[in-house]
Amino acid sequence: MKFLTLEDGQLGVLYDGVVIDVVAAAQFLSVATPATSLEALVSAGDSAAGEVFRLAQQALQEGCASRPFGEVKPMAPLPVPRRNILCLGKNYLEHAQELAPKMKTSGEAPRQPIFFTKAGSAVIAPGEAIPAWQKYTQKLDYEAELALVIGRNGRDIAPADAWNYVFGYTAINDISARDLQKGHHQWFRAKSLDGFAPMGPVVVHHSVMPAPADIEVKCFVNGEQRQGATFDQLIFDVPAIISVLSAGMTLQAGDIIATGTPGGVGMGFTPPKYLQPGDEVVVDISGVGELRNPVIE
Amino acid sequence: MKFLTLEDGQLGVLYDGVVIDVVAAAQFLSVATPATSLEALVSAGDSAAGEVFRLAQQALQEGCASRPFGEVKPMAPLPVPRRNILCLGKNYLEHAQELAPKMKTSGEAPRQPIFFTKAGSAVIAPGEAIPAWQKYTQKLDYEAELALVIGRNGRDIAPADAWNYVFGYTAINDISARDLQKGHHQWFRAKSLDGFAPMGPVVVHHSVMPAPADIEVKCFVNGEQRQGATFDQLIFDVPAIISVLSAGMTLQAGDIIATGTPGGVGMGFTPPKYLQPGDEVVVDISGVGELRNPVIE
Repeated sequence: MKFLTLEDGQLGVLYDGVVIDVVAAAQFLSVATPATSLEALVSAGDSAAGEVFRLAQQALQEGCASRPFGEVKPMAPLPVPRRNILCLGKNYLEHAQELAPKMKTSGEAPRQPIFFTKAGSAVIAPGEAIPAWQKYTQKLDYEAELALVIGRNGRDIAPADAWNYVFGYTAINDISARDLQKGHHQWFRAKSLDGFAPMGPVVVHHSVMPAPADIEVKCFVNGEQRQGATFDQLIFDVPAIISVLSAGMTLQAGDIIATGTPGGVGMGFTPPKYLQPGDEVVVDISGVGELRNPVIE
Repeated sequence: MKFLTLEDGQLGVLYDGVVIDVVAAAQFLSVATPATSLEALVSAGDSAAGEVFRLAQQALQEGCASRPFGEVKPMAPLPVPRRNILCLGKNYLEHAQELAPKMKTSGEAPRQPIFFTKAGSAVIAPGEAIPAWQKYTQKLDYEAELALVIGRNGRDIAPADAWNYVFGYTAINDISARDLQKGHHQWFRAKSLDGFAPMGPVVVHHSVMPAPADIEVKCFVNGEQRQGATFDQLIFDVPAIISVLSAGMTLQAGDIIATGTPGGVGMGFTPPKYLQPGDEVVVDISGVGELRNPVIE
């Protein structure tokens, strides 16, 4: 079950290589849909997700119009997040190690998860251009990340119960200005410039997501693979992230948690391989697919 | 011109010691109001603020009902911020210095402003209890801060133009769990537990706010003064904050920017004076008034 936000902001289903407009499908079948936007579907929960998926599937089988996925230009799945994007820092050991000599840190795994946020206004769609903001940064970097989409409000969530709060997954490129990250000490500003959060193309429902060991998180720049790890290499796994983050703080349906990036960011290379206008970055995550964005000045 | 959010979420005006319900005042005068909530008024801008103020003033003069301020239990002025609260760290020199021995930092003024965010879900009203969250922290601290309320969207705002983006001011108590702040490295989690952002009682329109040198930012715990500074002691002043924060990142109407806290936080004392259940904290800021909250377990 893969969901996306269509050009007009309405809910779509990706099935068997084609995209079905859920509102059109409901009209075609003369039935009601439990949600007309992906944002609403996330809050409506698992049974609504199943209902929407079956509705789309049935409409398709009965001859409702659809489009090949390649012809659709989706918006970001949650184009206007209700809250800042919640992010983890240094959550893969190789990444913590590669940053150590550059950021003058120990390179060890953090003892407690590092949480920061990214402005929701930074979100852009698959295919949309990432501004290089050369006026403000000379060290533009990529970070491929699997992001959790939270489906239920909750606080003090036990690790064993954490998966029940995950609606699904999407991909985020946590674009980062390394010079601002260092200069401003806390990371918010370096991660929040307009266009610094490419997201999508789809939200994959948790029920059809591969096991963590089978989820590959990869990044390519101009076709060259820079990052690659499996999701079971996280230092703090999903139950740990959700239980710690919700300890005393209410998680909300619609929250997006970017789970951290593997080793291989531009800053980690010697000499560094920062992004330049004209580059194309692709985040490729098993199940979620390719999130492809050009860089422009 | 002082505005507040009444018990039912609607817009109120504080004038001459009494509170006028703007919706009731408009009905009393049989006129329309440009806004029925403070959130809407902030986006509607200065002329709407003037119009609402005159409407309330006229209704009062013509005999419309009002209540003494002391009998009103306002909500936080912006009870559900649209985005995380934007915050500055170490923006008063005395505070940077007092943290140095405890956080193992240099104690010097930061060369660039330090920005982080606080979850909007942490906002509570004047008078509402701050949970001590003793399950998660043993180092609960207060931080009195003057907060800016942004009235217009803007990006790449020049310092000379910055004041045009400020709708008004309110007070925030940036409650902080110092052990979590240290343990999690980035500050988001330590500042974002539910109840960690008391706000209010009013938003003061910029047109009636005293000059920075005349704005005192004070904090009292159980009647003992702990913090006290004037707003001109900021390391990064309002034009600097707004110009740097908006460089490449669109500020939005309704954004709240907590400008940093003076010296005198609990952690700065030897031994430290952390908050305990049963304490009462008062943030007192010239023009804005008193933001008083008890601490409970």
